[in-house]
Amino acid sequence: MHRLRVLARQAGASPGLAGAGSLGRRGSSSGQGDLRFSTVAEARAVSGKSRRKILTLQSMNPQVKAVEYAVRGPIVLKAGEIERELQNGIKKPFSEVIKANIGDAHAMGQQPITFLRQVVALCTYPDLLDNPNFPKDAKTRAMRILQGCGGYSLGSYSASQGVNCIREDVASYIERRDGGVPADPDNIYLTTGASDGIASILKILVSGWGKSRSGVMIPIPQYPLYSAAISELDAIQVNYYLDEENCWALDVGELRRALNQAREYCNPNVLCIINPGNPTGQVQSRRCIEDVIHFAWEENLFLLADEVYQDNVYAEDCQFHSFKKVLYEMGPEYSSNVELASFHSTSKGYMGECGYRGGYMEVVNLHPEIKEQLVKMLSVRLCPPVSGQAAMDVVVNPPGPEEESYEQFIREKNTVLSSLAKKAKLTEELFNQVPGLQCNPLQGAMYAFPRIFLPPRAIAAAKDLGMAADMFYCMRLLEETGICVVPGSGFGQKEGTYHFRMTILPPADKLKVLLEKVNAFHLRFLDEHA
Amino acid sequence: MHRLRVLARQAGASPGLAGAGSLGRRGSSSGQGDLRFSTVAEARAVSGKSRRKILTLQSMNPQVKAVEYAVRGPIVLKAGEIERELQNGIKKPFSEVIKANIGDAHAMGQQPITFLRQVVALCTYPDLLDNPNFPKDAKTRAMRILQGCGGYSLGSYSASQGVNCIREDVASYIERRDGGVPADPDNIYLTTGASDGIASILKILVSGWGKSRSGVMIPIPQYPLYSAAISELDAIQVNYYLDEENCWALDVGELRRALNQAREYCNPNVLCIINPGNPTGQVQSRRCIEDVIHFAWEENLFLLADEVYQDNVYAEDCQFHSFKKVLYEMGPEYSSNVELASFHSTSKGYMGECGYRGGYMEVVNLHPEIKEQLVKMLSVRLCPPVSGQAAMDVVVNPPGPEEESYEQFIREKNTVLSSLAKKAKLTEELFNQVPGLQCNPLQGAMYAFPRIFLPPRAIAAAKDLGMAADMFYCMRLLEETGICVVPGSGFGQKEGTYHFRMTILPPADKLKVLLEKVNAFHLRFLDEHA
Repeated sequence: MHRLRVLARQAGASPGLAGAGSLGRRGSSSGQGDLRFSTVAEARAVSGKSRRKILTLQSMNPQVKAVEYAVRGPIVLKAGEIERELQNGIKKPFSEVIKANIGDAHAMGQQPITFLRQVVALCTYPDLLDNPNFPKDAKTRAMRILQGCGGYSLGSYSASQGVNCIREDVASYIERRDGGVPADPDNIYLTTGASDGIASILKILVSGWGKSRSGVMIPIPQYPLYSAAISELDAIQVNYYLDEENCWALDVGELRRALNQAREYCNPNVLCIINPGNPTGQVQSRRCIEDVIHFAWEENLFLLADEVYQDNVYAEDCQFHSFKKVLYEMGPEYSSNVELASFHSTSKGYMGECGYRGGYMEVVNLHPEIKEQLVKMLSVRLCPPVSGQAAMDVVVNPPGPEEESYEQFIREKNTVLSSLAKKAKLTEELFNQVPGLQCNPLQGAMYAFPRIFLPPRAIAAAKDLGMAADMFYCMRLLEETGICVVPGSGFGQKEGTYHFRMTILPPADKLKVLLEKVNAFHLRFLDEHA
Repeated sequence: MHRLRVLARQAGASPGLAGAGSLGRRGSSSGQGDLRFSTVAEARAVSGKSRRKILTLQSMNPQVKAVEYAVRGPIVLKAGEIERELQNGIKKPFSEVIKANIGDAHAMGQQPITFLRQVVALCTYPDLLDNPNFPKDAKTRAMRILQGCGGYSLGSYSASQGVNCIREDVASYIERRDGGVPADPDNIYLTTGASDGIASILKILVSGWGKSRSGVMIPIPQYPLYSAAISELDAIQVNYYLDEENCWALDVGELRRALNQAREYCNPNVLCIINPGNPTGQVQSRRCIEDVIHFAWEENLFLLADEVYQDNVYAEDCQFHSFKKVLYEMGPEYSSNVELASFHSTSKGYMGECGYRGGYMEVVNLHPEIKEQLVKMLSVRLCPPVSGQAAMDVVVNPPGPEEESYEQFIREKNTVLSSLAKKAKLTEELFNQVPGLQCNPLQGAMYAFPRIFLPPRAIAAAKDLGMAADMFYCMRLLEETGICVVPGSGFGQKEGTYHFRMTILPPADKLKVLLEKVNAFHLRFLDEHA
């Protein structure tokens, strides 16, 4: 009926469009269209043949097509399939899928930090400010945040750069963290998770064509946000390799090799560092950071320091040093010249609030005109989620020793971090008990990235299936045990080596069982492909 | 002291890097670097001369440089300056700045919908589920959402496409809204506000070089997210003009003119529609939507329907029709072929929850391979903020008539919408009382976009200052009255016409005063430039 009405209408005038004739040329061309429609459409309706799509793999943005993101890639889709099969009663050698592919703490049973949730709940529903069950310090925090929001509401847009008082709290946090090195709220940009900040600053940094196209130096193995963002921006990915033999240390000689080689085909202008490392878990020494900063200074590279695991340091001989702090301690030639952006987030650390998409970026020595450009670019998306900004505020402004919630806060924080430290040790120990598995110490972050030595027959079998050998291994692990980990090929690795990344987030008892299952699988796999 | 330590160390070996020599060529080249450093750095430290920045207006991404976003542009920066001056006690002819530049309801004093905030607070801090002051229906909603979240926590990542049960609720909402036209949760993507969805789908749609580069058809006047996204993507902006003489109606003849002209220099493959219109406030007739869909079908254009103001319809002879519904009612030739993405958000409507950055996109007839590509691309940013997803859930699944919170919910919703309807009428009436101001009926959305007829002397004065004439007018308005509105040039307008966009969100009594102030300013301005 409706189609008939359309056909009938198309033959006549459109009263709704009367008076618009001056703008277009409706007359004959529109008439032609109608004619074509009433024949082609009728014909198709009869034949049932579907038209060619406009948006296809062939016509889509090739830069987006080139993007890969293994952390939620094919293996995770397969894990979802298996989960649905289990729900439908299909029998498997296991009863549940364990998603050790992603650093998603709460999904693994970690409890939220009470104080953080209290503050965000108070901000969400301010009637609770009268509720006697909420502690006073949480209420004070909430009121401070709400006073920074338009109409005292989390529902208002914030400034594009983030709520002012939260940026002030971030700056104070950084000063405390860095032993007094000054931080300016004007240099703080609240972001939608760290990913958003990293992608934003990369976007502004990329330019040029052909041999002058921007090159972005990233560690291998890397967190695949970097390679994905570089693909999307059509920039040139420049790999520098971390030294697995040396606990994934970063070597400036290797940086120099990579840089010199890249200069033959692009214009490398950005150096990305992940510290503590993801997926590799190493914690950089102060000396190494100095070397990197000096290198960036010397070679005119913009530094990106991804420091989202700054609270996740477990090895007793390791300590987190921020790039910002080391930069300032190296003296004015560095601290007033080296351009740096560093990143933090609510998602990792002891809070694990991934879902809030809270984060911040601090910039150092950014040209004032570029700061304007950055704000302009961010303003198009209006602002980061304000509830995520509120969560970020609690992370940088937790209860002090004199406050009511302090004891509980510290207890909860230490419980998470000490458990992670134990699990880091356990994971290293158990993986290294098995021949053909070799795992560096997990100094920090929340992943193991063991090397797997695969027998030639397994490599050949994978090749026959058109699969990366470690993908083959991980798929088999998933199918036989329900454990979902990400193949090393998704992060990058030296040619001829194989790895996987596994989070250490499951509760300790569950993690132990899980590690034993991986080990048992590994031995079976070796046996089968011997 | 620290710099000295760096210098000392650079001269010797780096123990932290021992064993890494095999990877790089540290030897001589590193030595040269040190030499250069200790001289250049010392020299600079003495001269105090700063180095050239790496990231400058010259070196930055030219596509980002080309972005303009007037809604938070120069006039808003100026408004911020004036606010700070007022705070510092500087005397002005007004006591406060009124930011009528952006549709930010809560910042203008609109109260959040109680039920929505109750549900989100319960999700945030589930201890409240035991609190007798929260209604049962809010608790049921919260439990349903939490059951969809990993570890029952808003702090877990959701699936890249959004929480499953929320996508189901969105699909049910669309079916109810569209009188039973089926909606599939698999076609729903939760987004970080509508902006994120629009930018994502545009990103995937853009390809080609030179004359085959994608062209994106947008209305003029437009919401500048579109022009900004097109600039960033280096796509070609193809303007079609809305008919101001005909209450900003969209004319298919004008679409055809724009398309034919654009085909001479690019490959137009996307047609963007904003309905109800922003900044223009028109509500498209069903017939007009049919025409547009037929045109897209005929010309092989991917349709984007920005429908974030779908609840904001005030004119008695107007009704919101979704593109999806009309598409299905036009019969299978259309409903199984036309590729469509439509958008909604928590930010507008009666809820005005901008800060939550909640939204969804529904796709129709998207190729399955493209759906995979879309999920892959979205997965790089992990997921939209989960608290924003929860807010979106309440918007699409409000209390039913049989539920405890229904009465209060309906009362609050109607209060907001009926007040907006009155303000829409008031604004049109008052603006049309003054010579040289001409305002179309505000049929929907939340803005007035009156035409201002500027005297030649004002246009000349603006030209002397290197300013768009309507920017000159708006700057003067801001400086003399504290009222911040956005010049029409930020949205696009027919050459030789001038406009501004003003929200109608201030409370009715305040809005009346504000409109009278604008009118009085306008008369003074005419007088001054007569």
